[in-house]
Amino acid sequence: MKAVILAAGLGTRLGSLTEEVPKGLLRIAGREILYRTMKALEELGIEEFIVVTNPKYKSKFEEFLNREGFKHKIILNKSPERGNGYSLYLAKDYVSDKFVLVMSDHLYEKAFFERALKCEGLVIDKIGMFINKKEATKVLYENERIRDIGKHLERWDGFDTGFFILTPEIFSYAEEIIKEKAKAELSEIVKRAKLKVSEVSGYFWVDIDTPSELKRARREIIKNSIKGVGDGLISRTINRKISTRISGVLIDYVTPNQMTVITFFLGIVSALVALFNIPLAGALYQVSSILDGVDGEIARASMRMSKFGGWMDSILDRYVDFAFLLALAFSINPSLRLWVIIALAIFGSFMVSYSTERYKAAYSKDIYKEIPAMKYLIGKRDERIFLAMIFCLINRIPELFVLLAMITNLRIVLTVWLAWKHDKNI
Amino acid sequence: MKAVILAAGLGTRLGSLTEEVPKGLLRIAGREILYRTMKALEELGIEEFIVVTNPKYKSKFEEFLNREGFKHKIILNKSPERGNGYSLYLAKDYVSDKFVLVMSDHLYEKAFFERALKCEGLVIDKIGMFINKKEATKVLYENERIRDIGKHLERWDGFDTGFFILTPEIFSYAEEIIKEKAKAELSEIVKRAKLKVSEVSGYFWVDIDTPSELKRARREIIKNSIKGVGDGLISRTINRKISTRISGVLIDYVTPNQMTVITFFLGIVSALVALFNIPLAGALYQVSSILDGVDGEIARASMRMSKFGGWMDSILDRYVDFAFLLALAFSINPSLRLWVIIALAIFGSFMVSYSTERYKAAYSKDIYKEIPAMKYLIGKRDERIFLAMIFCLINRIPELFVLLAMITNLRIVLTVWLAWKHDKNI
Repeated sequence: MKAVILAAGLGTRLGSLTEEVPKGLLRIAGREILYRTMKALEELGIEEFIVVTNPKYKSKFEEFLNREGFKHKIILNKSPERGNGYSLYLAKDYVSDKFVLVMSDHLYEKAFFERALKCEGLVIDKIGMFINKKEATKVLYENERIRDIGKHLERWDGFDTGFFILTPEIFSYAEEIIKEKAKAELSEIVKRAKLKVSEVSGYFWVDIDTPSELKRARREIIKNSIKGVGDGLISRTINRKISTRISGVLIDYVTPNQMTVITFFLGIVSALVALFNIPLAGALYQVSSILDGVDGEIARASMRMSKFGGWMDSILDRYVDFAFLLALAFSINPSLRLWVIIALAIFGSFMVSYSTERYKAAYSKDIYKEIPAMKYLIGKRDERIFLAMIFCLINRIPELFVLLAMITNLRIVLTVWLAWKHDKNI
Repeated sequence: MKAVILAAGLGTRLGSLTEEVPKGLLRIAGREILYRTMKALEELGIEEFIVVTNPKYKSKFEEFLNREGFKHKIILNKSPERGNGYSLYLAKDYVSDKFVLVMSDHLYEKAFFERALKCEGLVIDKIGMFINKKEATKVLYENERIRDIGKHLERWDGFDTGFFILTPEIFSYAEEIIKEKAKAELSEIVKRAKLKVSEVSGYFWVDIDTPSELKRARREIIKNSIKGVGDGLISRTINRKISTRISGVLIDYVTPNQMTVITFFLGIVSALVALFNIPLAGALYQVSSILDGVDGEIARASMRMSKFGGWMDSILDRYVDFAFLLALAFSINPSLRLWVIIALAIFGSFMVSYSTERYKAAYSKDIYKEIPAMKYLIGKRDERIFLAMIFCLINRIPELFVLLAMITNLRIVLTVWLAWKHDKNI
């Protein structure tokens, strides 16, 4: 299937932001709106993109499309004032089958496309959770076909998402209207065609028109970046609330790898500080734990995930934990017996990560997804570090080691038991 | 594609071994010959098996085929004395396309099937590295077609592997011969058909006729079980030489999981012994390292690999290494400074395994296959344990920890560097 992308409009309400750059090429959270749409559609099987643009923006789109390597064709609309229906009409000779039509300046989450690609006609959203409802285009339908469409309807059933699955039939309606009055809006064409209406409600999508919508979209993208990551209790309730704000600020200035290195150094610094100021060290260690989420958030939000990045981050995390706990041990000059407990705590902390990663290596599956009960075991990194901070602040280091040694090694025993039970049942 | 399996012969030369059990159902290294053939063919895409057998063995094959769940049809040859060509002929109504013909009592490695399935006609082996050449059936060919076939040819080009890719055409030649003289050997049929000859040479396969061939086959299977495992230097040169012999003895009596547990306890015992007799502990630790290969060998040789088994084994190995090194440290009552080095040694040993398993979790690829240079880094478990034994025997424990701390952590740095370089190049 091909996708036609309408990008000939001259954005105005975003002011200085779109003076030089078309709206579709605005970067939100490190990536162009259009990159997000095209990458998601490409991954879902769309093979070629027909981009209709105007002379002013042509070179900008050309540069973008070539740089990112999307298979594409650029079509020039020399009279953008003739409306977006006219832009669609210009794509006529480049599609022969069912095709996707999507606006270049709408932002969607990938899950929206997954569902919308299975639809027919105009895709509407009955909830419109994230959009400016006053400004949105509304749709009224009857017997699953459009009856009316516009911004100022009295009655309506849902919002126009700017996403369509069309057949070449649509071009004859476009031609009709263009012959009548030279210009054509998309909404007129689909209304005259009595296009079928499908519903995909509740997903994140927005038509970005104002700077405040831009800001909100950025926030949503970063919020989406922590979905399904398998966080521990402290991450969910504390760390992510702070780290996502930090990511929102840093995303345009720092790469994920830079962030990994910064976090690593902060972790090592917290270990060094443990040699002379334990409460401060505990606080710094917790700060590094919060920052540890930022590299992944930036990577996912700006679609720059890398396997090497994830691997490296895990290895550095192990070194930080080791350095911190060892420095802490060193600073209290433990007895021989306490050393055994310290060793068990360090080793057990390590084994928590080892057992889950080794599971993934063996089964090619995430243990948290495979065995839901795993979620209720405590002892993940965010929880261990939070505990460490508490005990550092009240200066109870031996007790911390006893607790860590127990929690982590017990967790391993339970992990083995759960995995064994799970394995027997499949 | 379907496969016809000839299993109507009455094995004689294996004496008491085949009095009750047909040759194809003899267990070698924990699995029936026929299980190995059928499992491998099934994994390579064969969908159904037509097994031709005689009344004496029918119930045995039925029990076997149902137990293992292969999709099959059993055909009865009530007159096995009429030859294996007659057995083939009885399969006539059950195949309509190209099909595989294979002997039930020949043992092949899977790589042989991978190549042989792409061939046409009779598959010959020009080398016959593992077979009894005197007893083998030889093949002489001309223009890629059989000219002569038999045990006692004066000139010949290769050995009959007992594996064929045939078309239903073959049945008309079989019928001809059967009409002429009631009985028919397969060799007569393929000779009269001037069957095409293909070559697949150098792989492990044998026609098992004598107890000594049986023994040899078992040895080969166990030897094959350590291929591609990614062993370290000590494993390759010492440990595997001993462990494969032990596996050969134990394979019929011990399951892989039992062996994992036994090895784990021996490792823990060696750690306990380290508290009062260091040289003995070192020797026991090395023995446990040798035994550590046995569970995997038995699992692979008897085709009982399990993901849980591999995962569990890795986790227990980490606990053994931790326990041993910690006990060793405990027994020398180290200074605060030495404790740091001990911690680095224990942690580094751990990280060697962590970094490679975490790589597999991230990339879904084996780091040793992805980055060949990894093979030249020392510090794998077999090497660390061997070092530990040496230093225990000469009672130089602090030096051992210094060495381990350096080797393992240096190895991690090099691993990261190699992975980073590799990642940049792809």
